[in-house]
Amino acid sequence: MFKPEDVWNDVQRIRKEAPLVHNITNYVVMNTTANALLAIGASPVMAHAAEEVEDMVRLAKALVINIGTLSAPWIAAMLKAASAARQRGLPIVLDPVGAGATRYRTETACQILKETPPAIVRGNASEIRALFYTESETKGVDSRHAADAAVEAAHGLSKKYACVVSVSGAVDLIFSGDRLVRVANGHPMMPRVTGLGCTASALTGAFAAVNPSPYEAAAHAMAVMGIAGEMAAEQSPGPASFQMHFLDALYRLSEEDIRSRLRIEPA
Amino acid sequence: MFKPEDVWNDVQRIRKEAPLVHNITNYVVMNTTANALLAIGASPVMAHAAEEVEDMVRLAKALVINIGTLSAPWIAAMLKAASAARQRGLPIVLDPVGAGATRYRTETACQILKETPPAIVRGNASEIRALFYTESETKGVDSRHAADAAVEAAHGLSKKYACVVSVSGAVDLIFSGDRLVRVANGHPMMPRVTGLGCTASALTGAFAAVNPSPYEAAAHAMAVMGIAGEMAAEQSPGPASFQMHFLDALYRLSEEDIRSRLRIEPA
Amino acid sequence: MFKPEDVWNDVQRIRKEAPLVHNITNYVVMNTTANALLAIGASPVMAHAAEEVEDMVRLAKALVINIGTLSAPWIAAMLKAASAARQRGLPIVLDPVGAGATRYRTETACQILKETPPAIVRGNASEIRALFYTESETKGVDSRHAADAAVEAAHGLSKKYACVVSVSGAVDLIFSGDRLVRVANGHPMMPRVTGLGCTASALTGAFAAVNPSPYEAAAHAMAVMGIAGEMAAEQSPGPASFQMHFLDALYRLSEEDIRSRLRIEPA
Repeated sequence: MFKPEDVWNDVQRIRKEAPLVHNITNYVVMNTTANALLAIGASPVMAHAAEEVEDMVRLAKALVINIGTLSAPWIAAMLKAASAARQRGLPIVLDPVGAGATRYRTETACQILKETPPAIVRGNASEIRALFYTESETKGVDSRHAADAAVEAAHGLSKKYACVVSVSGAVDLIFSGDRLVRVANGHPMMPRVTGLGCTASALTGAFAAVNPSPYEAAAHAMAVMGIAGEMAAEQSPGPASFQMHFLDALYRLSEEDIRSRLRIEPA
Repeated sequence: MFKPEDVWNDVQRIRKEAPLVHNITNYVVMNTTANALLAIGASPVMAHAAEEVEDMVRLAKALVINIGTLSAPWIAAMLKAASAARQRGLPIVLDPVGAGATRYRTETACQILKETPPAIVRGNASEIRALFYTESETKGVDSRHAADAAVEAAHGLSKKYACVVSVSGAVDLIFSGDRLVRVANGHPMMPRVTGLGCTASALTGAFAAVNPSPYEAAAHAMAVMGIAGEMAAEQSPGPASFQMHFLDALYRLSEEDIRSRLRIEPA
Repeated sequence: MFKPEDVWNDVQRIRKEAPLVHNITNYVVMNTTANALLAIGASPVMAHAAEEVEDMVRLAKALVINIGTLSAPWIAAMLKAASAARQRGLPIVLDPVGAGATRYRTETACQILKETPPAIVRGNASEIRALFYTESETKGVDSRHAADAAVEAAHGLSKKYACVVSVSGAVDLIFSGDRLVRVANGHPMMPRVTGLGCTASALTGAFAAVNPSPYEAAAHAMAVMGIAGEMAAEQSPGPASFQMHFLDALYRLSEEDIRSRLRIEPA
């Protein structure tokens, strides 16, 4: 569990099986998350019409719901898709983008949590705190807290909804009930690229599509994010070249890259 | 016909006239297709409100309809714009993204085909098969078939709707009734970049804006796509650098590039 | 005023304070404008639901409204957000993308001008002319005019609505009533990248968030756009590599870059 060979095994399965990952996500990141899914070897699809989400869920191996640019018809489609995904036993990943910034986002994320509990919630520390304490303290969509400030909230949320909670930060935290694992891979440039958190959620969906343990899938996805980030940073003078090299690194990622860089620390 | 000088002639006209190409397309690719149109020399505009599509069609030289992220108000606008375009004799390009994956997409594409037949349908083999056989066999938005698996469907569709059918694949097929031409340019990295099929449709619109023959326009556009793809692949370690070099190649494309690389094969 | 140290002072404040810039903008540019705001040091958020725009305005330091891909629910949210922003004394930047191309765009921009006058209007010459003369003469979203063709319109618009008017072109014009300043920085590649005008508006929002003078903020933002554009052009063979280097340049911009390149010319 959490060994380099386990991470690599998931990457190989994604590349071989090209699982369809159905995303209902925000306008800002649709292009970059689709490209990240293609780069790692998965097959992305974006579909948000209530008229078709159930049909699309039927073809998919994972559903990723991201509330980054909400509106009423999208919320209805998210709930419909999530309900269909649960009926089919499909893993759902919820990214509560901006929870805490507005009541609309906090309430929508909480509604999804209650009505169609996801396998994995992946957010930054401010968002995870907002979901657990249901207080408004987020500033926009960037985190005001280090991941460790969300230890109690992530732990509590994981137990309350029986889901994995994955908190991104300089060191990522992944809780599954009382179990905790930390992923120390990554680079300070990553928060300077819009939507890399959303990309982490999309990749978490791809890993959950091939690994039956959401706990492992969440940790492996964050490790691959961080490793590709480290590889990208080595050749990038700024955030836009970083974004490009990051996607190229996902595409080129080798077993040796994982073996030499992986820093997963079971707590 | 289909000679390097014919392709180059179209490119020069696009660069000189900068035709306005009106796109009603999906959220995932709006940025990259707008950039591809600018790179080749056309002038892109995105407008999807029923309140303004007829006004925009009035200024445009081609209309590109792409159903990649459908919803009801967008379908209404597509039909309204297509109807206005037909009244004005404007070439319409239809990209049936994900036809076959959901009934909603298949039915919408078929409705557009019937009510406002486009000059050119451009899709992958799975989509073209879905439109002709109206069966659901697509997996998401990626093709499960090589272009040649769509020979019968493309041929039939072209005759049924009296339109050009352009099927992308390792070798592209372009049918105009009983006429067939194959374009062998391209690179295996292309399906690893999200929305390059959508870019092909947008460029097809630009070529149709300057070339009165939809058959030639469709083939020339696919040739330019493939040539720029080959040029990009030579300097790209992964799909994100490929996307960047691809757009740069469209911008820099010379007569010599076309002359030395063009691989159009009349059947 | 308009000295290199004034421009640099604003950049430093943005980097230090990371002001939240609330964007209600078009689908084409959401990703690139969010990345530009992050690159310069601001904190971007996109939110367009009527249910949450007032909450988001409460957290923001500037509001940027861009009408590039309009529809009715978005217009309602724009007016609601702008009204809340005015009540809170927040600077509003309006980008009237495509005004003049369709009545819908011209009328929407004029409605926002009248009901919730922005601090700054930033557009190309064709758009500014359309707002002042309320005539339809724009072709799509690209300018048909050099900035100087909008001198009278920009001057008139600035006086009529008591707002700063910033007109982009080879030489940018910024009017504040009877005061005029010209910014000569920039590069011919810039109009070949989709949405760089929208990026200029977003950065104008970031500068307005830290500089209480909309006149200075508008000019400083255009100077930084132009300087980053010059830096990017020096290493870019085409528009896609230009876009990447442009964002990297915003991130790396130094006092020396501004000092050596700034070309602001008070009229």
